[in-house]
Amino acid sequence: MNNSYGQLFRISTFGESHGPAIGVVIDGCPAGLAIDESFIQSELDRRKPGQSKITTQRKEDDTFKILSGVFEGKSTGTPIAIVIENQDQRSKDYSHIAETFRPSHADFTYDVKYGVRDYRGGGRSSARETAARVAAGAIAKLILAKQGITINAFVSQVGELKAPHYTQLDLSKTEDNIVRCPDASTAEKMIELIDNIRLNRDTIGGIVTCVIKNTPVGLGEPVFDKLHAELGKAMLSINAVKGFEYGSGFEGTALLGSQHNDEFYNEGGRIRTKTNHSGGIQGGISNGEDIYFNVAFKPVATIMQDQQSVDKKGNEATVSGKGRHDPCVVPRAVPIVESMAALVLVDFYLRSKTNKLEP
Amino acid sequence: MNNSYGQLFRISTFGESHGPAIGVVIDGCPAGLAIDESFIQSELDRRKPGQSKITTQRKEDDTFKILSGVFEGKSTGTPIAIVIENQDQRSKDYSHIAETFRPSHADFTYDVKYGVRDYRGGGRSSARETAARVAAGAIAKLILAKQGITINAFVSQVGELKAPHYTQLDLSKTEDNIVRCPDASTAEKMIELIDNIRLNRDTIGGIVTCVIKNTPVGLGEPVFDKLHAELGKAMLSINAVKGFEYGSGFEGTALLGSQHNDEFYNEGGRIRTKTNHSGGIQGGISNGEDIYFNVAFKPVATIMQDQQSVDKKGNEATVSGKGRHDPCVVPRAVPIVESMAALVLVDFYLRSKTNKLEP
Amino acid sequence: MNNSYGQLFRISTFGESHGPAIGVVIDGCPAGLAIDESFIQSELDRRKPGQSKITTQRKEDDTFKILSGVFEGKSTGTPIAIVIENQDQRSKDYSHIAETFRPSHADFTYDVKYGVRDYRGGGRSSARETAARVAAGAIAKLILAKQGITINAFVSQVGELKAPHYTQLDLSKTEDNIVRCPDASTAEKMIELIDNIRLNRDTIGGIVTCVIKNTPVGLGEPVFDKLHAELGKAMLSINAVKGFEYGSGFEGTALLGSQHNDEFYNEGGRIRTKTNHSGGIQGGISNGEDIYFNVAFKPVATIMQDQQSVDKKGNEATVSGKGRHDPCVVPRAVPIVESMAALVLVDFYLRSKTNKLEP
Amino acid sequence: MNNSYGQLFRISTFGESHGPAIGVVIDGCPAGLAIDESFIQSELDRRKPGQSKITTQRKEDDTFKILSGVFEGKSTGTPIAIVIENQDQRSKDYSHIAETFRPSHADFTYDVKYGVRDYRGGGRSSARETAARVAAGAIAKLILAKQGITINAFVSQVGELKAPHYTQLDLSKTEDNIVRCPDASTAEKMIELIDNIRLNRDTIGGIVTCVIKNTPVGLGEPVFDKLHAELGKAMLSINAVKGFEYGSGFEGTALLGSQHNDEFYNEGGRIRTKTNHSGGIQGGISNGEDIYFNVAFKPVATIMQDQQSVDKKGNEATVSGKGRHDPCVVPRAVPIVESMAALVLVDFYLRSKTNKLEP
Repeated sequence: MNNSYGQLFRISTFGESHGPAIGVVIDGCPAGLAIDESFIQSELDRRKPGQSKITTQRKEDDTFKILSGVFEGKSTGTPIAIVIENQDQRSKDYSHIAETFRPSHADFTYDVKYGVRDYRGGGRSSARETAARVAAGAIAKLILAKQGITINAFVSQVGELKAPHYTQLDLSKTEDNIVRCPDASTAEKMIELIDNIRLNRDTIGGIVTCVIKNTPVGLGEPVFDKLHAELGKAMLSINAVKGFEYGSGFEGTALLGSQHNDEFYNEGGRIRTKTNHSGGIQGGISNGEDIYFNVAFKPVATIMQDQQSVDKKGNEATVSGKGRHDPCVVPRAVPIVESMAALVLVDFYLRSKTNKLEP
Repeated sequence: MNNSYGQLFRISTFGESHGPAIGVVIDGCPAGLAIDESFIQSELDRRKPGQSKITTQRKEDDTFKILSGVFEGKSTGTPIAIVIENQDQRSKDYSHIAETFRPSHADFTYDVKYGVRDYRGGGRSSARETAARVAAGAIAKLILAKQGITINAFVSQVGELKAPHYTQLDLSKTEDNIVRCPDASTAEKMIELIDNIRLNRDTIGGIVTCVIKNTPVGLGEPVFDKLHAELGKAMLSINAVKGFEYGSGFEGTALLGSQHNDEFYNEGGRIRTKTNHSGGIQGGISNGEDIYFNVAFKPVATIMQDQQSVDKKGNEATVSGKGRHDPCVVPRAVPIVESMAALVLVDFYLRSKTNKLEP
Repeated sequence: MNNSYGQLFRISTFGESHGPAIGVVIDGCPAGLAIDESFIQSELDRRKPGQSKITTQRKEDDTFKILSGVFEGKSTGTPIAIVIENQDQRSKDYSHIAETFRPSHADFTYDVKYGVRDYRGGGRSSARETAARVAAGAIAKLILAKQGITINAFVSQVGELKAPHYTQLDLSKTEDNIVRCPDASTAEKMIELIDNIRLNRDTIGGIVTCVIKNTPVGLGEPVFDKLHAELGKAMLSINAVKGFEYGSGFEGTALLGSQHNDEFYNEGGRIRTKTNHSGGIQGGISNGEDIYFNVAFKPVATIMQDQQSVDKKGNEATVSGKGRHDPCVVPRAVPIVESMAALVLVDFYLRSKTNKLEP
Repeated sequence: MNNSYGQLFRISTFGESHGPAIGVVIDGCPAGLAIDESFIQSELDRRKPGQSKITTQRKEDDTFKILSGVFEGKSTGTPIAIVIENQDQRSKDYSHIAETFRPSHADFTYDVKYGVRDYRGGGRSSARETAARVAAGAIAKLILAKQGITINAFVSQVGELKAPHYTQLDLSKTEDNIVRCPDASTAEKMIELIDNIRLNRDTIGGIVTCVIKNTPVGLGEPVFDKLHAELGKAMLSINAVKGFEYGSGFEGTALLGSQHNDEFYNEGGRIRTKTNHSGGIQGGISNGEDIYFNVAFKPVATIMQDQQSVDKKGNEATVSGKGRHDPCVVPRAVPIVESMAALVLVDFYLRSKTNKLEP
């Protein structure tokens, strides 16, 4: 369904950017999980606006409240409802878009699709919705952590500036700088680039790379629900995403089969592959190697410049840049990518429990 | 669910490469559709093996039989079951892989996941399963055709050889050559490249581009079921796919917002965009412009060369190339990409019928 | 999924009896519906505790708040989240059941299933959860009302006291008395019976009958999702329900086919049936006649008497009746039955929009 | 979806009474199950027509063929497709109903809903569809048998003739007579009654009771997917079913809470209940006691008598009884009830594997 994701660990998000609150209901969280509320908050803080000079200056604390499903600090197996109240609601900032369609936003398509639209701050199409995903993703991460599975995303590209391949990076350094690129020198250039673009009242795109380690062999379901197909859908469902590739990705198309194939070998009793063009997934199922993928984000559509457009009646209109927005979305997208990856993984983890008659 | 796709127009495929048959059950096809069986067969023929020198020489007629859901030539609203018997079953060809894991195939992951595996011809993980999708996709195309929606895929890249952007091509020429690239001169080079690689007993990857025209405004559902998110999942669920991008895609990440935004204008009463970096989709919902996307296929994993691997017990083993396989999968992937796109579109088309209280 | 109901108009409820709040998220409500908040409140008021001497004396205002999905009084097509805060939380009342299993409650089964349990007031298994259904059901009724469909439930039996068949009753009188039986003389006896049983610190069961009028022909889906099968599931999902029958029901099993069949006739151009043993449903699909069905409720399990039981360790224990509970659940069940019926109907109404290619 | 049932063990049936074949695809059967084909056939034989003088004389062998999902006698975890060809297709027998609506059949409602209808033998609305369910149910039973769970249904009532309560019967004797009532003297009267009704060219209804033993504690999911709610839906989805009750059922409504409550006691370390008005289910979750329920079947709608009706144009028409039909459906319904119960149980069994973090 439109606003739900997952089969066994299912999240349903709700809320508009400038309504009373946004939130999420998680159905299917196994009972007995210790719910670490400070971890959930720390994840929300990684996503929240106003973190640094290269993100939007809008302030929103994103304090959450759990309404159900947790008793004496543990999940009970019943739905976990989490609500985040909207605090910084400057509705007047958005009155100018009530009648006019912002270029490359969802104003026009929502208007035609539904006939009615909560235009304040983009309403439901605002990236604010992703805060609910991050809260749910934090809980998913808690489950995965008990299996030893780790998920680390980072900014691998801003504009034309690229970080080295993940295997050459120390991913523990991602949070060391405000652009969330673990390579310090690249990070410095990225920050400078974004800051310049911000001063030019423009925006720029980028790429987030995500690495999942210690996945057991066997997660993912043929045929339609391949592990990478669900990862792809989950990533493409994030605002501003334009592409997804895993393992060798688009570049791998130019390789020969004899170059691309990952030969198996026996590493002390564990079957492994010498190379990992497969990106840890074969036939849609995890093979135990690192899962890694790239997510492409377009430049943010809201720019601080005048743009030509039309209004609801089809008349020409000018959209003027107003409000406080991100010059580049990728630093704040890092925890969102991780959260969606966690939601995919935990769902497949639970689904894998019924693959075989005898476990 | 694993082997089903779609919410309202739901297909469930079944069958192994070397079992008695493969097939599909379509649940949710609206009643009253004229079922053009010759069109279904022509679509299957575009996918079938043995079409030309650059595809596998394996022969399989892929003749289908409708078991239910059609009466006096029309759909009745009940499930349409379609069965395709497997004819060319040389099981002995595959006996060598019963105990050994082929590199970059699904043998190892299936074996661990399920504990049991139909190893003949790859079993369920064989691309033969996609014939069932093409049969279902043909019916989806029949519904879309009544709305004027057209779907055309073509080979846009083989190895490093690239065709021009789709807007510079005449897509009606796609079927004019065996590689299914509408640009004749690029096609010629692609055919030569694939043929050489085949002679070298190797394989090569490529990219299929798909263009959907005349989509009404309003298809696609926020938040998780964005139109491009479902297209991405559908494409990534096809065997050998490693990446998906739509509109400006990965290249668009290097653009500025002021370059990337698609300004609206009024074209004789119809609201359109001057550029189309959005790829016809804004906020996950179609905006009426061309939808276009790229699908990356890795080089086929089966090569006619010896490869190092391990067997089920973890002992070193050699996998020798045997059988008849495609040196490059993209020419035959064209109708598969179109079929999956049609299945996505028809599902959203049906879903869109309940968006508004008053249609 | 466990805590969700519906395919296209999907509700997901959450919340425990004594947590911060209960609530519901509605996904799939068509855009453009005028959301009448006073009607929602009036429906909640029909269900709330403390209405009369024959219901529990517990007071709970059940004031709701809409968090999303409604803008300027109209549904926007995005999820409608409704929250009802829990006010009357006397947790100490329930401390005695933390370790002991109340007979015929869900304490024991929840404890084994989940290993952890919010024992306060029954937690998630409390009938308080049905308030969320009533809020969602009110919105479903608003949609159905625009189609002219009406849903009226009433108390048709308490203990052995039975009201006449619905066709002999004026259903507009249901709300005229506190037991919600439209037959005044039977209502009087029912009230007296319940009041006596209450004084005896005991409880009694009963039956709610529901009548749906003006349903268009064609709602309901063969094969598994027959209209009456979904109505049955929806009713059986209400706390304390033990049986469901529609049309001729259990008594109809003793009839001959020649007695039971409903012959068709033409009433001024509309095809109707002379009798209605079918209960308005044939082959799982509405035929335009009145839909009517009975829902059996067991006596409330909480009685004001000592009962033998065991504690979590298996030791013998006495459960003493405490707190404030209903001596008979059926008067307050009337709006719940109507709400679940409305949710079933509206879902099938939306689903019916894609049955035929040409509507 | 309409023609699918189950969340994790999902069946999708297809086929019309007089089309080429009916069948079922099972998605989610765990790998490694020994598929006993002779057991599947024996279950189909219990349902097939032509078994005795009190069932239809129509002959249909109901021989099945497995097309996929089984390799070397074991399930592989991939979809199991089963096809049963239709043999006894006397289409001319049914030509008279092409234009006329049979009373209390689905002819009228299908016609309005879909605009087109396969009228031959009732098409999709024929009870022939249940053969597919029985084949799938047999596989579900094989899984349950490994857990020690047994399912036994029997005919407990025909017209007014009732068998004693199941606790007073030896359920191993159900198959000892053609009416499938384990009480020999009642069975004799039932057979005589049905035979007389058959000679009168009429039909009669009845009740099937089903008993499930050895269910572990914890199957069933609150809130909407309560174990008895799904059993109810599953039973009500069977052709001709008009009612469902479990445990004390409708009669329990007249009891007092003090009579109805099932007190817990400790039986050698296992927590049990002294009585079982709960029917083995509390709060929607199995408590380990016997699960038992009743399913009410109406008299078969096809009678060998003339009936008044209307045709598609609304003109008066006479429907004459033709063909070969059951005078009473309950003897053949016994394996169908068991099959649907097995499908419900196996789905909840698989779902229960993710209730707790630590199993």
